[in-house]
Amino acid sequence: MTDSTSKEGPFRPEARNPRGFADKRARDLRAERAILEAVSAVYERYGFEALDTGAFEYADALGKFLPDSDRPNEGVFALQDDADLDGKNGQWMALRYDLTAPLARFAAQNWETLAKPFRRYAYGPVWRNEKPGPGRFREFIQCDADTVGSARPEADAEIIAMAVEGLQAAGLPRGAAVLKINNRKLLNGLLTAAGVETQGQKLSVLRAVDKLDRLGVEGVRLLLGEGRLDESGAFTKGAGLVGKSIDAVLDFVQAGSGGRTGTLANIANVIGGSAEGDEGLEELAKIDAALKSLGVDDDQAVFEPSIVRGLEYYTGAVFEAELLLSTLDEKGHKVSFGSIGGGGRYDDLVARFTGQQTPATGFSFGVSRLAAALRAAGRETGVTARGPVVIINFDQAHMGEYFAVAAELRHAGIPAEVYLGSSGMRPQMKYADRRMAPAAIMLGGDEIAAGTVTIKDLDLGRELASGVADNAAWKAERPGQQTIPRGELVAAVKTIIGRKIIGE
Amino acid sequence: MTDSTSKEGPFRPEARNPRGFADKRARDLRAERAILEAVSAVYERYGFEALDTGAFEYADALGKFLPDSDRPNEGVFALQDDADLDGKNGQWMALRYDLTAPLARFAAQNWETLAKPFRRYAYGPVWRNEKPGPGRFREFIQCDADTVGSARPEADAEIIAMAVEGLQAAGLPRGAAVLKINNRKLLNGLLTAAGVETQGQKLSVLRAVDKLDRLGVEGVRLLLGEGRLDESGAFTKGAGLVGKSIDAVLDFVQAGSGGRTGTLANIANVIGGSAEGDEGLEELAKIDAALKSLGVDDDQAVFEPSIVRGLEYYTGAVFEAELLLSTLDEKGHKVSFGSIGGGGRYDDLVARFTGQQTPATGFSFGVSRLAAALRAAGRETGVTARGPVVIINFDQAHMGEYFAVAAELRHAGIPAEVYLGSSGMRPQMKYADRRMAPAAIMLGGDEIAAGTVTIKDLDLGRELASGVADNAAWKAERPGQQTIPRGELVAAVKTIIGRKIIGE
Repeated sequence: MTDSTSKEGPFRPEARNPRGFADKRARDLRAERAILEAVSAVYERYGFEALDTGAFEYADALGKFLPDSDRPNEGVFALQDDADLDGKNGQWMALRYDLTAPLARFAAQNWETLAKPFRRYAYGPVWRNEKPGPGRFREFIQCDADTVGSARPEADAEIIAMAVEGLQAAGLPRGAAVLKINNRKLLNGLLTAAGVETQGQKLSVLRAVDKLDRLGVEGVRLLLGEGRLDESGAFTKGAGLVGKSIDAVLDFVQAGSGGRTGTLANIANVIGGSAEGDEGLEELAKIDAALKSLGVDDDQAVFEPSIVRGLEYYTGAVFEAELLLSTLDEKGHKVSFGSIGGGGRYDDLVARFTGQQTPATGFSFGVSRLAAALRAAGRETGVTARGPVVIINFDQAHMGEYFAVAAELRHAGIPAEVYLGSSGMRPQMKYADRRMAPAAIMLGGDEIAAGTVTIKDLDLGRELASGVADNAAWKAERPGQQTIPRGELVAAVKTIIGRKIIGE
Repeated sequence: MTDSTSKEGPFRPEARNPRGFADKRARDLRAERAILEAVSAVYERYGFEALDTGAFEYADALGKFLPDSDRPNEGVFALQDDADLDGKNGQWMALRYDLTAPLARFAAQNWETLAKPFRRYAYGPVWRNEKPGPGRFREFIQCDADTVGSARPEADAEIIAMAVEGLQAAGLPRGAAVLKINNRKLLNGLLTAAGVETQGQKLSVLRAVDKLDRLGVEGVRLLLGEGRLDESGAFTKGAGLVGKSIDAVLDFVQAGSGGRTGTLANIANVIGGSAEGDEGLEELAKIDAALKSLGVDDDQAVFEPSIVRGLEYYTGAVFEAELLLSTLDEKGHKVSFGSIGGGGRYDDLVARFTGQQTPATGFSFGVSRLAAALRAAGRETGVTARGPVVIINFDQAHMGEYFAVAAELRHAGIPAEVYLGSSGMRPQMKYADRRMAPAAIMLGGDEIAAGTVTIKDLDLGRELASGVADNAAWKAERPGQQTIPRGELVAAVKTIIGRKIIGE
């Protein structure tokens, strides 16, 4: 196939990103890579091994997004594979929408040969075929860690400890994030003891509890009972609990007291009576003990009975990583970042394929989202996005000298390049400026003859320029410019770069 | 949507990879990550900045793979985006099949604001909708570097020098790879001087030259003339050159003499006469000079007039990275790896969008392919895929001790985990063995009471086991097992791991 050519000339497509897809430049990539490198190192120290599955899965393996003939694309990017040579219809494939569905497929496929419990971490893009919007992309990077094949609460504790340590390694100082932990069995047990039997009513209770932050205790009280009329006059039907059960639920969700030990005691006081609730409490106690042994303190991981974290998926412990950082919006209002990731225990990972329940627990966070939060809070890690040292290109005859200087700087670990455009002096300085070059190297015929080199400290020039009114005087004085023996070049450039690293 | 449930029970999809897609385990990922980290560092020292575009491009922007309504999937994975809210038909999108098409779109889209020349590197998966086969995947990792906006031959030289240095940093020792450089203008000029005018005839000549390795000089001579009858009796029509022109082409493609200076002189002797040929020769001379300044010697980059590297795409210098490593196949025959990557100069990068020719040059290599070659040749870099130290789990009552030991080892930078499965002692040792754990830590009631810890050196155990006939005796002797004071744990584990790192 070739581009169609008409009388109006060849077809010229518009250069644009597909909607919901974005290009990432060096600064974003450095930040994301620094996060992934730091977090991977932590996860590997915990004995988790890296796994990468392909971008596509067969659609039937994706579970809830199983395409049908009417709407194969709902929520995912799906396409029908080419038919096989034997004439069979091609199968539907879809890009992964998270990293858990591929893990489920992988674990089911390799279950017999895996060393179990199977502990893996994974990161990479996931794709969601949703309507894009400002800050809402259809492709983003996730990072997951899961333990498959261990029912022990200590496996949850390890995931929590890893999440705490991983986020800290990614650049979040202690106190900037907290892991909030709950157990689905507690509220379930409480509701069973209160006579709530149907799954539908339990889900309504979970939905009501999930609104505690937004509506407060009295709003949730209404949603647990008959229902709530909001400011706009719209009525939300409630879960239909009676007064005593409503009080029990509200006592439970308010049982968080800061310290894990205190919260455990509070929960014990309010949930009492059901086997499932007792089980949930015992699991939290074991998680607490393991976290203590792992050195995870109360300011890093707390029990928070109001955490819901998804509705039908989780079966035991659930956790959410909340950023305590905030930034100011354009109106000067403080904006909290809120949840950066979460996870919990689930049992149906492999069961979809094999029919066998398999205990699993994991944590997932959004890498781009964490990078954005770190940047907005001034906590970006990774090297600042500095450009290379630029060697000014005066004369084709001296190209060899320029390249030798560039090679010398590179061998010393300093990014450097010879300007290879076709322009004169002024555009070259502008180029160096736009690349955020720390320095420009000038090597004219005079310098070469004298065995010297001239270095211009560009940041110093920028600083001086911004504070100097008389532009002409600034130019004449050549601030930050020095001519030195050729042999002192690397040391001089290192001094300039070093000054900036310290100053930044 | 939910899974369909029938009388035969719930639907159970088969757990399998989509055809042509593979899972990567830790060892593969470590090798690929080590390559990308090393190469990225080199490229950044050359002043190239990282760029990552999304997985999808609008199909019209992909150029030659522009989908039509009959066969939107030819060569690429394409799908029609959901219609916009305003009722317009959704646009066709396709997964990128290389990293150059997205660069073209990005450069055209941002041309006005980019600092030029624009130097970027990129790596990531690309997707090809082709028939998969053994070792032929539909998803693989590429790594590219390109300079856009410089017509200077020195820009080609930098790309070549980067490729040399990058492959070396990735683990190829000097002498294990060579960059072979040619210039499309040389043969073009020679053919023009010989009176060959049509593009079709020139392409036939290129195709014939491309078979030099396989058919030898006499085979190519036939293909340059009337044509060639192969062993099976099939006839390939030739390029239709006459005797003198055939000799000129054959003299040219055999002008490579090892050293770059010698080859330049040979080429000058055989191509003479056309403006285009002289231009090509001058460009190679400038590339040679820049490579010399950059410290790239004749054993690392040579001129090789028989290199063709694609047919219609390139307009000037072309280069190919050839691995000189070889391995043995299952029959004991030596197998060369051949080309690992290549590139060259091309001018239509942005022109498809803007109509303006823009000079560009770049190099691309296959990351998985390089990793496979390094492994097969025993040159794999990156840490060996060792598992974590495994702390044996004897008793729930001592879980706190186990976790404290794990945390202590991790803080010392040693991957460690507590066994969290539900099995007894023997399966735990088997688990540690399958994880390739360097050591197992045993902490029973006796050890805890005595303030000691028992360490089993698993590799030593494996080595001894493989050389000892009497399995029972080996078990009784507990080789590689030592009980030491608890405070000496980290040092003892470090000694065990250190011995292995040195021994490996």
